Amino acid sequence: MASKTFYAIIAGAGSGTGMYSLPKYLVPSRASALRFAKAYPVVLLARRPESYNEIVSEINGSGGQAIGITADATDSATLDLAFQTISQRLPGSKLAAAIYNVNGGFTRKPFLDLKLEELDASLNAAPRGLFAFAQKTLPLLLDSVPDSPHPPTLIITGATASVKGSAYFGGFAAGKFALRALAQSLAREFHPQGVHVAHAIIDGGIDTPWGKNLIMNNGVEDGKIKPEQIAEDYWHLHTQHRSGFTHEIDTRPFVEKF
Amino acid sequence: MASKTFYAIIAGAGSGTGMYSLPKYLVPSRASALRFAKAYPVVLLARRPESYNEIVSEINGSGGQAIGITADATDSATLDLAFQTISQRLPGSKLAAAIYNVNGGFTRKPFLDLKLEELDASLNAAPRGLFAFAQKTLPLLLDSVPDSPHPPTLIITGATASVKGSAYFGGFAAGKFALRALAQSLAREFHPQGVHVAHAIIDGGIDTPWGKNLIMNNGVEDGKIKPEQIAEDYWHLHTQHRSGFTHEIDTRPFVEKF
Amino acid sequence: MASKTFYAIIAGAGSGTGMYSLPKYLVPSRASALRFAKAYPVVLLARRPESYNEIVSEINGSGGQAIGITADATDSATLDLAFQTISQRLPGSKLAAAIYNVNGGFTRKPFLDLKLEELDASLNAAPRGLFAFAQKTLPLLLDSVPDSPHPPTLIITGATASVKGSAYFGGFAAGKFALRALAQSLAREFHPQGVHVAHAIIDGGIDTPWGKNLIMNNGVEDGKIKPEQIAEDYWHLHTQHRSGFTHEIDTRPFVEKF
Amino acid sequence: MASKTFYAIIAGAGSGTGMYSLPKYLVPSRASALRFAKAYPVVLLARRPESYNEIVSEINGSGGQAIGITADATDSATLDLAFQTISQRLPGSKLAAAIYNVNGGFTRKPFLDLKLEELDASLNAAPRGLFAFAQKTLPLLLDSVPDSPHPPTLIITGATASVKGSAYFGGFAAGKFALRALAQSLAREFHPQGVHVAHAIIDGGIDTPWGKNLIMNNGVEDGKIKPEQIAEDYWHLHTQHRSGFTHEIDTRPFVEKF
Repeated sequence: MASKTFYAIIAGAGSGTGMYSLPKYLVPSRASALRFAKAYPVVLLARRPESYNEIVSEINGSGGQAIGITADATDSATLDLAFQTISQRLPGSKLAAAIYNVNGGFTRKPFLDLKLEELDASLNAAPRGLFAFAQKTLPLLLDSVPDSPHPPTLIITGATASVKGSAYFGGFAAGKFALRALAQSLAREFHPQGVHVAHAIIDGGIDTPWGKNLIMNNGVEDGKIKPEQIAEDYWHLHTQHRSGFTHEIDTRPFVEKF
Repeated sequence: MASKTFYAIIAGAGSGTGMYSLPKYLVPSRASALRFAKAYPVVLLARRPESYNEIVSEINGSGGQAIGITADATDSATLDLAFQTISQRLPGSKLAAAIYNVNGGFTRKPFLDLKLEELDASLNAAPRGLFAFAQKTLPLLLDSVPDSPHPPTLIITGATASVKGSAYFGGFAAGKFALRALAQSLAREFHPQGVHVAHAIIDGGIDTPWGKNLIMNNGVEDGKIKPEQIAEDYWHLHTQHRSGFTHEIDTRPFVEKF
Repeated sequence: MASKTFYAIIAGAGSGTGMYSLPKYLVPSRASALRFAKAYPVVLLARRPESYNEIVSEINGSGGQAIGITADATDSATLDLAFQTISQRLPGSKLAAAIYNVNGGFTRKPFLDLKLEELDASLNAAPRGLFAFAQKTLPLLLDSVPDSPHPPTLIITGATASVKGSAYFGGFAAGKFALRALAQSLAREFHPQGVHVAHAIIDGGIDTPWGKNLIMNNGVEDGKIKPEQIAEDYWHLHTQHRSGFTHEIDTRPFVEKF
Repeated sequence: MASKTFYAIIAGAGSGTGMYSLPKYLVPSRASALRFAKAYPVVLLARRPESYNEIVSEINGSGGQAIGITADATDSATLDLAFQTISQRLPGSKLAAAIYNVNGGFTRKPFLDLKLEELDASLNAAPRGLFAFAQKTLPLLLDSVPDSPHPPTLIITGATASVKGSAYFGGFAAGKFALRALAQSLAREFHPQGVHVAHAIIDGGIDTPWGKNLIMNNGVEDGKIKPEQIAEDYWHLHTQHRSGFTHEIDTRPFVEKF
């Protein structure tokens, strides 16, 4: 049975629809919610209720506890409200794990066609969003260090573009590189204080319902990453002993070129 | 004698005073202007005339040609005006080299003390500023490919924080990582079109008049990088044949730990 | 209950005594053997029986199955004999996981004092040893792809020196860099064939009985990596679905500088 | 006029014929010899006189000074003899620059077809060869620190495989990664003593007479690196002021994918 004393929060529960969507970059929030809900109540943050309603129902209907909150994880003010709601809905519960899955700013176009707003969308979803989310969650994670069942953990989802600035992907890569810079810096500052900060380079398409029509790796079976595998990776990171923190993992389908 | 047909532009001629200044991060614009002025008229962009007046006079007084223009290199509108001014001042001249030396957003503080404005200053000076500068200069550099004396070149100044997110440097590193992402992406897109894009990791303090009281490497002689050396490096990058472009160099004092 | 149909093999079971020993670099073979023995019979290879006798007894005495074989994992001929022995001792069993933990060539000294034999010891333990071990195990792992409970896995243990050539560590780093090169190359060749190849950067001291007098990180509690955590990491890598292979992880104590 | 007081030495003057040859990997020794001969007498080491005879004649016939010595740069004993010869031929002259261009061990084949001898050829040409060459040259370079016209320099030629272990290139990459490890370690140890150590990642084919039939980048003009450009890069590295050493550069044709 899951502890009621600690909870997990996942930002970026959206399905990835909208101007920036590409199924390849859909975030693994749904599977992470299911995985962490085996151990903790789970809070999902998304900009629109339709992004989390289904998974919240599924978890609550199967013996777990989930709460969906409409909030823009990149906006400090709505985050404040979200954490007030959490205090009311989960009184006395402390934060064990925070997952930053927010995506945005994905564009693929010649640089001279790129708009500043597209670069800004990438920067907003990546370093600026993580900044807001981490400013809220790190004090709570620090507070959980003495008694959390596992070292309190902040997990950040990156992409191929976190480590390679490909042609036509400059805007997206700018955000993802910056996100990784922040993740590294937070790890170096907060690891010695007992909070685990991990960054995952998702190097491949994710196999989601929304992306089922997207052919990747020539349609070979298992050519897209099962979100359940990413969720297991995140759970593994969360449960690492503080004597052996992993800061960065890469993950890709067996057939993915790299 | 310098060609009049091609010119060089250097953004970020400021002395680094102001809220973000640390002498360590002073940009090597002055020395670069002197070096490139041996071959080309040089345009210096800075937010305040006092940042370029002295070097402009020095170059014009010694047989070269320099033009200072007050502009915020991170602001598309003032950049437009700057390039109109250039057209009037250097009629018919084409762009051979553009150097992006803009700095900003340097802070060293615990993450929970960092303000969003500080992160934004870093993002503004780095990826957003390069975005604006590159959108203006790349079409001009492309136009120079057929007849430029050397492959037209965009050079971008990075720092240690371009490749390492140290504790307390998250905001600064976010900008510098993003700048590098953009530099990589531009190289991959524009190299095949004949424009050379290079990124320099300045891994150490720079020996400037403003920084003379800053002790680095225990004050050992040559423990800070001579800006003239960086200028020679930039000139070397500019003059590389297109069959052998260097995309990235690091540079540091002989005594610098790395 | 552990499958009898598949087994795991761990090379480098030694305690790290000998000319190259430093407790910091003791290999996590014992803990890995215990972890993998929960699922598979485990074969331990070491140059001397005293390196594996104790752990073999412990596993066999607690319901698992372990076999110790005296062999030099870097020597093709003794490896041939070892696999003949395995065929006899575990008839019909197939290989599910192979772990290359061999260490050697650790020296810390000024380059001009380094002997060629010391460089060679590092190269022998690292790329040459992995070469021999992988040539034997990869055909067996490929043969297990269709029916192994998890994707057959080759795990290779690296160190800080796998990614950084520090002063005085040139010989050791040469071996570890080369080991990583080979690991990358094997991943790119064998992932698409269904065999998972993973490389772990152990960035810190390991907390072993032999190393208990070695002070690291000022003796802070958990300042050395628990080998059990590394074993869990390896088990997690082994059990990843082929749609989401991790090729490289880093691991370090929460207080380790990086 | 070239100084007679200091000389340069280049190891690996061969044309790359033999079992490991591919024109792509031909070493840029000829062009480097010509470039450094403008400033210094140049010593060329190669295993066979036919590798250096032509370039030695060319330099000596055009006002420079060159000496060819038959030696295996990876063999300490023949290197000893080579430096005795140098003492006789250039009495009183000191070493200003040493370039390690030795190549070998290039193979492209499935790992299970790779022979240990092929891995060994790569390790021998790369870390073991540099070890021997650096053990001889670093004491001489250190001795030149006080009065060398430029900081005494050791330059090491790497390749794409120095930073990426591609499928089928494991043996070659093992050597090149190890070479880079050693280069990094030497830089960190010897920079503070005044000797500059630089590593060049040659990421593309080199345009040599021997390789003229090799089509690269679809035969586009300048799709192979002009060795003269590499030589200019090396000369630039050699002339850097000690306040701003570059440790690593990459170089590739403008059309090369990376």
